[in-house]
Amino acid sequence: MARSGLERGLIHVYTGDGKGKTTAALGLAFRASGHGLKTYIIQFMKGKRNYGELLIARKLSPNLTIFPAGRDQFVNRRSPDTVDIDLAKKGLARAKEIIKEGKHDLFILDEINVALDYKLVDLNDVMDLIKNKPAKMEIVLTGRYAPKEIIEAADLVTEMREIKHYYKEGIASRKGIDW
Amino acid sequence: MARSGLERGLIHVYTGDGKGKTTAALGLAFRASGHGLKTYIIQFMKGKRNYGELLIARKLSPNLTIFPAGRDQFVNRRSPDTVDIDLAKKGLARAKEIIKEGKHDLFILDEINVALDYKLVDLNDVMDLIKNKPAKMEIVLTGRYAPKEIIEAADLVTEMREIKHYYKEGIASRKGIDW
Repeated sequence: MARSGLERGLIHVYTGDGKGKTTAALGLAFRASGHGLKTYIIQFMKGKRNYGELLIARKLSPNLTIFPAGRDQFVNRRSPDTVDIDLAKKGLARAKEIIKEGKHDLFILDEINVALDYKLVDLNDVMDLIKNKPAKMEIVLTGRYAPKEIIEAADLVTEMREIKHYYKEGIASRKGIDW
Repeated sequence: MARSGLERGLIHVYTGDGKGKTTAALGLAFRASGHGLKTYIIQFMKGKRNYGELLIARKLSPNLTIFPAGRDQFVNRRSPDTVDIDLAKKGLARAKEIIKEGKHDLFILDEINVALDYKLVDLNDVMDLIKNKPAKMEIVLTGRYAPKEIIEAADLVTEMREIKHYYKEGIASRKGIDW
């Protein structure tokens, strides 16, 4: 599993209201690590709860690192708590470092589209991350409500469209499947 | 990471023409393994090429097993080679065993919708798998062209809709990202 890196890094967006955005990004990280690529994931608006991905990430260490940049609490979209804004800003600061260091092949900004929609982070800052990315770094942005500027900048955009979801049948989020 | 299993297993379908179907299933397997759940993946119409997921699966062993039920060659949709039909039938036979054994929490039938569309496997056989699944087993079926019978039987269906794809810009499938 010698690490050869990517020849050229592209930009992916996984958006829409259906299940599969974060999980697709996690699957990419998992696959990439099979080829010795190094992945860094910043999870916006998520804390350090015992998410399956956090529990298993160390198994793929040092090829996979996850940085939680939120807390597991309801965020008020109309007037977000300063705690939530501060945590998102820490995530953004870490993102700038990752871009600057350029040591990772795959960089996943999980739920950043939602953080943008909630105005926890600023679109100009995210566009700067994309513009300044190292040529060989692949960037993945997930979350509903991807703004058109990000969609325009992307090389690949998939809309995960909800056709059916068991949440609507009253089945709650389940350990091992939803987190 | 004690294994407690799911209380109730549901049925997911990831279909549509966009990127993210197999990767979402892989992400689910990755997350599930964090909680000690056991996943079995049968990859229809895929062989033993050095896919990232095959290379890394052993890291999650014994929580993740991947069974390739195809070969990495073009399949003629109008008249599939008997080799391809036989490999898919072997996958189906293995699937029946997994359902019967009931030892796994998450069972992924990757690209089975395409195998159905190519008539490598029969819809009645796949519907039987679903009907006979152990109550606590979660089943995930991926691939374009999911037939309506499977969509009706599912608890969750996401359509991965291609908004943009770099393949259309002439960028070929890349190691670590696409396989």
